[in-house]
Amino acid sequence: MFLYDKYKETLDNATHAIHARTFYAAYPEHPKAYAEDAMAKGQEWFKNQLNNNFDELLQQEPDSWHGVESSPYLTDMLGIKYPAFSVEKLLSRSKAAGKDWLHSTPETRAAVLVDSLEKIKTRFFDIAFATMHTTGQSFMMSFQASGPHANDRAMEVIALGYKALKEFPTHAEWEKPMGKMSVKVKKTWKAIGKGTGLVIGCSTFPVWNTVPGLYATLITGNAVIVKPHPGAILPIAIVVAELQKVLIENNFNPDLVQLATDTNDAPIGLKLAEHKDIKIIDYTGNSHFGTELERLEGKAVFTEKAGVNSVIIDSVNDIDAVMQNLAFAISLYSGQMCTAPQNFFIPESGIKAGNETLSYEAVVQKLVENVINIANNPKMGPGTLGAIQNIHTCQRLEDTKAHLHGKIILESKPVANEEFPKARTASAMIAEVDATDSKTYSSELFGPIVLIIKTKDTPHSVALAKELATTKGAISCGAYSTDETVKKYILSEMEEAFTPVSLNYTGPIWMNQNAAFSDFHVTGGNPAGNATFTDAAYLVRRFVWVGHKEVA
Amino acid sequence: MFLYDKYKETLDNATHAIHARTFYAAYPEHPKAYAEDAMAKGQEWFKNQLNNNFDELLQQEPDSWHGVESSPYLTDMLGIKYPAFSVEKLLSRSKAAGKDWLHSTPETRAAVLVDSLEKIKTRFFDIAFATMHTTGQSFMMSFQASGPHANDRAMEVIALGYKALKEFPTHAEWEKPMGKMSVKVKKTWKAIGKGTGLVIGCSTFPVWNTVPGLYATLITGNAVIVKPHPGAILPIAIVVAELQKVLIENNFNPDLVQLATDTNDAPIGLKLAEHKDIKIIDYTGNSHFGTELERLEGKAVFTEKAGVNSVIIDSVNDIDAVMQNLAFAISLYSGQMCTAPQNFFIPESGIKAGNETLSYEAVVQKLVENVINIANNPKMGPGTLGAIQNIHTCQRLEDTKAHLHGKIILESKPVANEEFPKARTASAMIAEVDATDSKTYSSELFGPIVLIIKTKDTPHSVALAKELATTKGAISCGAYSTDETVKKYILSEMEEAFTPVSLNYTGPIWMNQNAAFSDFHVTGGNPAGNATFTDAAYLVRRFVWVGHKEVA
Repeated sequence: MFLYDKYKETLDNATHAIHARTFYAAYPEHPKAYAEDAMAKGQEWFKNQLNNNFDELLQQEPDSWHGVESSPYLTDMLGIKYPAFSVEKLLSRSKAAGKDWLHSTPETRAAVLVDSLEKIKTRFFDIAFATMHTTGQSFMMSFQASGPHANDRAMEVIALGYKALKEFPTHAEWEKPMGKMSVKVKKTWKAIGKGTGLVIGCSTFPVWNTVPGLYATLITGNAVIVKPHPGAILPIAIVVAELQKVLIENNFNPDLVQLATDTNDAPIGLKLAEHKDIKIIDYTGNSHFGTELERLEGKAVFTEKAGVNSVIIDSVNDIDAVMQNLAFAISLYSGQMCTAPQNFFIPESGIKAGNETLSYEAVVQKLVENVINIANNPKMGPGTLGAIQNIHTCQRLEDTKAHLHGKIILESKPVANEEFPKARTASAMIAEVDATDSKTYSSELFGPIVLIIKTKDTPHSVALAKELATTKGAISCGAYSTDETVKKYILSEMEEAFTPVSLNYTGPIWMNQNAAFSDFHVTGGNPAGNATFTDAAYLVRRFVWVGHKEVA
Repeated sequence: MFLYDKYKETLDNATHAIHARTFYAAYPEHPKAYAEDAMAKGQEWFKNQLNNNFDELLQQEPDSWHGVESSPYLTDMLGIKYPAFSVEKLLSRSKAAGKDWLHSTPETRAAVLVDSLEKIKTRFFDIAFATMHTTGQSFMMSFQASGPHANDRAMEVIALGYKALKEFPTHAEWEKPMGKMSVKVKKTWKAIGKGTGLVIGCSTFPVWNTVPGLYATLITGNAVIVKPHPGAILPIAIVVAELQKVLIENNFNPDLVQLATDTNDAPIGLKLAEHKDIKIIDYTGNSHFGTELERLEGKAVFTEKAGVNSVIIDSVNDIDAVMQNLAFAISLYSGQMCTAPQNFFIPESGIKAGNETLSYEAVVQKLVENVINIANNPKMGPGTLGAIQNIHTCQRLEDTKAHLHGKIILESKPVANEEFPKARTASAMIAEVDATDSKTYSSELFGPIVLIIKTKDTPHSVALAKELATTKGAISCGAYSTDETVKKYILSEMEEAFTPVSLNYTGPIWMNQNAAFSDFHVTGGNPAGNATFTDAAYLVRRFVWVGHKEVA
C-alpha cells in the first residue's frame, strides 16, 4: 500500500504514457545503477542455493521436495529442491485465498502489486544469476530480461489492468421522467474476476514471459498458480516468494500466488489446466500443447506459441551495417528467442546496396562472414551467444543437418567460453534452401539455425513471408528497403498477416527486441499465439462486469 | 460522413457518458415524437411488402428468391421473398468489399456508421410493423426494441469501438540515449480487423440482438454477413438495406454488409460459421448451437444463449406493488424475453410484508391473481402479452404440463385480441415444483411458463439461484428484501455467479429490461453466454494491434 501514492498518477495516466516510454524510470537497466557489490552478492546468493531447498515460499506443508534444473554453463545439476503440492491442494488454497482479493478494490490491488515490483527490484541480481544458470542466457541478457524488462512488462499490465477496471463508474443514479411521476434506480457496477488463473512458463524466458499473465490475472481480481518449466524454476520462484511476502504484509493470504512445481517425468501442467476451477490460462511454449490448451472450454486462454520469422531483403544503403545487425540478431542467445529471425528471403538477381548492385551470392557471403566474426570473437562471442538451454536444441542441429533438402554454407561449432569451459554452446548453422521447398522452411527450427531462400524478386519474398506468417505464425519480421513504395507494400502485406515489421534496422537495436510500453509482443492475430503483451484484450478477458440495480 | 462533426464530441467522450445515459437524445422513444402520419405510413409500407420481393438490398445477381416468414398475429404467411446467395459468393464479396474498409480510419468508419443510424431512424415505423408481424411482440415493444433501443445499442457499440481503436497512438518517435550516440526509431501502430464477421440473429429480437454484433464488427474494420432467423428477416433486412445505401453514398462497396437468408429446411448458418474466411461470429439463440459455435477454432465468437432466471423473495414493503410488478414481468411478451423470470424461490415459512407476515400460500396466491388480472384485462392483456412467435412454444406448454413433476396452479389460456382474432396467444402457466426436484426447474422453459419453488429459507433460495446461474446460466435475477444484510448477501452471492440483480423492483420498470449505456446485457460470465452488450471485450476481440518500427 505504501507506494501507491507515488504511482497513482502513473496509473491514472497509464495509457497516455504507454507507447511513449516516458515513465517508469524507477528501474534503470544497467547493473551499474545498482550498488557496487550487488553483483557479487547475487553470485554468492546463487552459490548458496545450490544443493539446498528453496525455502523462501510461504506455502505450507508440501507433499514432497523435488528439482531437476541444470546449468547450461556448468552442464551440471543445480541440486535445488522446491516444495511440491497436489493439484487439489493448490486449487483449494487458491479458492480460499481468492475471496478477499476478489472483493478488494482496484486501487488496493494496484498498490500491493506495484509494491511487489519494488521488492523484486531488490532481487534483480539473484534473479539474473538464477536466469543465467537455468536458461543459458548471458549474464547481461539474464539481468535485463528477467529483471528490469520483466518488471516493465508487469508494470505495463498493472497500469492497463487498472485502467480497464476503472473504465466504467462504480455507481450512478438513473432517473426516467414519466409524466407526473418518475422512476429512480440506483445502479452499481463491479468488475468480477473470472476465477483462479494458471500461468505456465517456458525454459528460455522464465520471468519475462511469465509476469505479464501473472500480474494481469492478479490485478483483475483473481488468485493465480504459477507452473514454471521444470528446467527454469529458480528465477520465477524468487518473484513468487517476493509477491507472497508483500501479500502477507498487506493482510492478504499469501496462497493467492502459489508456485506449482513439477518434473519432466511427472508433469502437472495439463492436469492443472483441465481442472474445473482454473478459469484463466497463460502459456508460453510449443505450439502443440498451446493449441491443446486453447481448445479447453469455459476458460480464457492466452498463448504465446511458436512462429517462423522472416527477413525480407530488397535494397539497403549500407550492406555492412545491415549484415552486422542481422548477424547479431541471429547470434543473440543462439537463436533461442521467439523473435529470432530464421528465414532470409533474398532475390536471385541480388539487391541494390547504395549505388551498386550486389549479387545474391555476395549478400549471402556478407551475412555468413558477419555471423562467423561474432562467434569467433572471444570478447563478443560468449556474451552474445550465451549457452544452449536444452540438449534437444543441439540434437535439432544434428537432425536438420542430416535431413536437409539444401546446402549447408556454414556449419555450427562450439563457442569457446573461458569462464565456463564446460558450457553447452553452438554457433549458428546457415543453409540455403530452394524457394519451392517450403516444407523445409515452413516450420520453426528453434535454436541457431538459419535458412536462406533465393526468391524471384521482392514481391515473391513478401508473398512467401506473408503466407508463412498467416499459416505458421510469426512474431517478428525484418525488412530492408530504400524504396518508399516497396516499404509501404511490405508493411501493408505483413500487417494483413498480423505481423509487425522491423524496417531497416542497423546499429545497436535488433528485431529480436520487444519492449514494454512500446511494442506489442506477439500480435495474437496469427498462429504464433492468440494474445499480445499487452493490449486491452489481455486484461478485459480476465474479468466480467456485473451491474446491480435497485429501485430507489 | 456528414454527421460526424455533430457526433465527434459524443464519440470522444463516449465512456464518460456511458452508464449515465446523458447523451444520445436524438432518438426519443415515444412514437408521438414522430410525424402524425408516420404510423399509418409504416402500416401501409408493411402491407405493400406482403407477397412481394424485398427489393431494397443492393446485393446483385441472387441465385434465387425465398421466404418463409409468417405473422403470429395473422397466423398466415407474409409471402415476402428475399434474395438468396451461395456461401462462396457471399464470402468472396465480403473479401472484395473489406479491404478499403480495413484500411479506412476509425473516424471515417464512425462517421459512416452514425450516419446509418440516422437513416434507420427514418424507418422506425416500417421496422416496428415488420417486427410485430414476425416476432409477435406488441406494436409498442416492436417499436421500442427494434427502433430507438436497438439504435441505442448500435450507438453504444460505435462509441466503445471508436474508443478502443483510439486507445493507443498511431505513431511515436522513440529515442534511446546510448552514451555519445543515440538510437532513434519511428514507431507506428494500427488496429487491424480480424476479418469477415457473421451475425446470426434470433426470431424474437431480430434487430436489438443483431445490431450490437453487426456494428461492433464494422467499427473495428471488418466486413459482415447478417444471417437472420428465417422466421424474422424483414426487420433486419431494412437495417441492412439502409446500411448499404449509406456505404455506397460514401464510396464504399455496399457488399461490406450483406444479408444472407435461408429457410428452416436448408439452413446455412453452420456452413457460413465454419467457413475459413469467417473470423468473427455473433450469435443469439439456443444453447446447443451456441456452444457448437463457441468450439470453432481460430474465430472470435460472441454468444447470447439461454439462461434460467430466478426471483428470490425474502421480504417486501408492499406485497401488491411487488406482485403487480412481477406479474407484469412474467406477462411481458409472454415470457419470450431472455430476461424473463422463470423460477420463483419463496420460503416455506412465508415472508415479511410490511408489518405482517404473509404465508407462502398467500404470496403465491397474490402472484397468481395479478397474472390473471393482466391476461384478462382486455385493455392491457393483448398489448402486454403480444403473440407467440413460434408454434413450438405452444407445444412446450403442452409438454411441460404433461410431464410435470409438480402441481399446476394456473393453466395457460388464449388471450383475447380484438384487433387480431386469429393471433397465436397464451397466458402464463404457473406450477409449483419441489425444491428437491431440481431437474424440473434447472432448464430454460422458454415462453409463458413460471415455476414456484418452496425453499427452507432465503439462504436456501439464494443457494439454488446461484447454483442454477453458475451451472445453467442466468441473464437476470429479481430479488426482494427489506433487510440491508440480506440484500448485500444476495448481491455478493449472485455476482459470484456473474448474474446482475434487480432489487426491489416495483412501479413501471421491470427486471426484463436492459438498456444501452446503462445495463450490461448478459454478463458473459455464466453459461447464458460468453459476451456482454457492451464492454471493451466485445470490441477489442475483433481486431489486432500491429506495430511497425523503422530505424530513423
